Amino acid sequence: MALVSPKKVIIDTDPGIDDAMAILFAFQSPELDVIGLTTTYGNVKTTMATNNALHLCELAGREDVPVSQGLLTSLRGAAKERIADFVHGSDGLGNTYPPPPKTKAIDTFAPDFLIEKVNQYPGEVTIVALGPLTNLAKAVELDPTFAKKVGQIVILGGAFAVNGNVNPAAEANVFGDPEAADIVFICGANILVIGIDITHQVYWTGKDLEDLGRANGRFSKYLYDASKFYADYHRSSYDINAIYLHDPTTMVAALDPSLFTTAEGVVRVQQEGICRGLTLFNNTKKKFHEVTEWCNKPKIKVAITVDADRVSSLIKERLIAP
Amino acid sequence: MALVSPKKVIIDTDPGIDDAMAILFAFQSPELDVIGLTTTYGNVKTTMATNNALHLCELAGREDVPVSQGLLTSLRGAAKERIADFVHGSDGLGNTYPPPPKTKAIDTFAPDFLIEKVNQYPGEVTIVALGPLTNLAKAVELDPTFAKKVGQIVILGGAFAVNGNVNPAAEANVFGDPEAADIVFICGANILVIGIDITHQVYWTGKDLEDLGRANGRFSKYLYDASKFYADYHRSSYDINAIYLHDPTTMVAALDPSLFTTAEGVVRVQQEGICRGLTLFNNTKKKFHEVTEWCNKPKIKVAITVDADRVSSLIKERLIAP
Repeated sequence: MALVSPKKVIIDTDPGIDDAMAILFAFQSPELDVIGLTTTYGNVKTTMATNNALHLCELAGREDVPVSQGLLTSLRGAAKERIADFVHGSDGLGNTYPPPPKTKAIDTFAPDFLIEKVNQYPGEVTIVALGPLTNLAKAVELDPTFAKKVGQIVILGGAFAVNGNVNPAAEANVFGDPEAADIVFICGANILVIGIDITHQVYWTGKDLEDLGRANGRFSKYLYDASKFYADYHRSSYDINAIYLHDPTTMVAALDPSLFTTAEGVVRVQQEGICRGLTLFNNTKKKFHEVTEWCNKPKIKVAITVDADRVSSLIKERLIAP
Repeated sequence: MALVSPKKVIIDTDPGIDDAMAILFAFQSPELDVIGLTTTYGNVKTTMATNNALHLCELAGREDVPVSQGLLTSLRGAAKERIADFVHGSDGLGNTYPPPPKTKAIDTFAPDFLIEKVNQYPGEVTIVALGPLTNLAKAVELDPTFAKKVGQIVILGGAFAVNGNVNPAAEANVFGDPEAADIVFICGANILVIGIDITHQVYWTGKDLEDLGRANGRFSKYLYDASKFYADYHRSSYDINAIYLHDPTTMVAALDPSLFTTAEGVVRVQQEGICRGLTLFNNTKKKFHEVTEWCNKPKIKVAITVDADRVSSLIKERLIAP
């Protein structure tokens, strides 16, 4: 019997290879009670994200977990969303082409599902957001009480004091919907943001991947196969024999925040121009002469350091387990 | 007889208390041959900058140094420039109200003066830019060979991986004319940029200022008096009993770059929105999937570290000297 009841988690996701890792990590973690998956676009289109989410639930024998489909485009409706198939494969799972899921998404639209759950369990739901923040921003817009009712939002997004991964200014999830990200960051919810300055410190080496391939864990061979394409991307784009653990690291932050240190301040997102999608964290004590766009806005927590070795090991341990 | 002939320097300046320090430091430095001052706006209006530049030359007995007035507004002509009188006083010199200069600016317009000098001494002129980069951008626009003929441009500007000092995104000089800054940063000249991440490490404490006040140096009492207003600004805005040595640190970088380490990359300036004036340095090895606004642009040097104690001491030593 657990001394503390597991944390209710909804995963907003666009699986995605590291999304798959994060979702399966959550299923392997008794500390987390996954009460739903909501789908978004980014690594793949939303409809494929839904299929992949259903597939991952089936794979884990967790067909009981509702999958709710989210918006097909960014909040203000871009003509064509940027899809990172060159990172995750055309199927989002490293071109392993899993069978179509037997199950179906629920009828409820993802923002409505998020609102329903935070109203059902006020203060108790943690949303782990692994893609662009479109569904969450829509929930904030639809329900003015959403921000205060959600327990916590743990976000993979932004590049704090480092270059982005889409371009020198912007990280992929925030770039995917800068308007939505700005709405969420200043909505007043209890938010923890994990930027790529953090997740670039948490990786598996080629050796870690070989360990996964050789293990007899429940998901280890599956993830080993899916990771090959992702590892190739890391070799060609970063010239490293390793893969970054963006999404599972964010899941660990929801599970055990003590493995991170944080700072509090206001984060805003640049909307136009060459730095569209840049996250700007006001982290200075200076009193500015003029009123700025960061004044009188709610503060959020931004991860500053990570115990990278322990986070990486914890992810490996659980994804290699039976 | 100097073993190396002194470096020909033009100071583009908006004096300004720390500009005054930088100019007087240059006059006190046998390694530097100040062949002209060009004036800009920022700490004060351009016309006041011209008066103050003439005054400082008189104070130093250097009426031989030509002072050339620059643009009155930013390159694209803002309706009203931001003037930092709250930092430098309404006279730009800490409300010490020096007498009007007896000398006059030369007739040549600052951008033309810059072009004339780099053509007169190709490859030999170092421009130390202590204000918004309007005059330099204008020179780049007027003369396509300017960038290749200037020896080096050493710029105080930008905030690299830290918050700005005008607002969380932007540093004052770049904010003063973001269009001009972007033009200069990618003009192809040999450029060294000193951001406020560097100059915030180089300061005089209250004790250093008291030492200045008690010294019998040629300019020490003058600078002590002018610095009182500047010190008050630091107390109220940063809650510190110290003053940042932005402009003189930049002059030291022109004199002895060995006191700094640098990295090379492309720097672009955000033009619109809440991060207008933000300097974004591409300092990643990552190969981006898409062509970015940082691709195929000339690289410049960005200061990464500074020997803060030695820079601060060198400035003090020369400004306290007879």
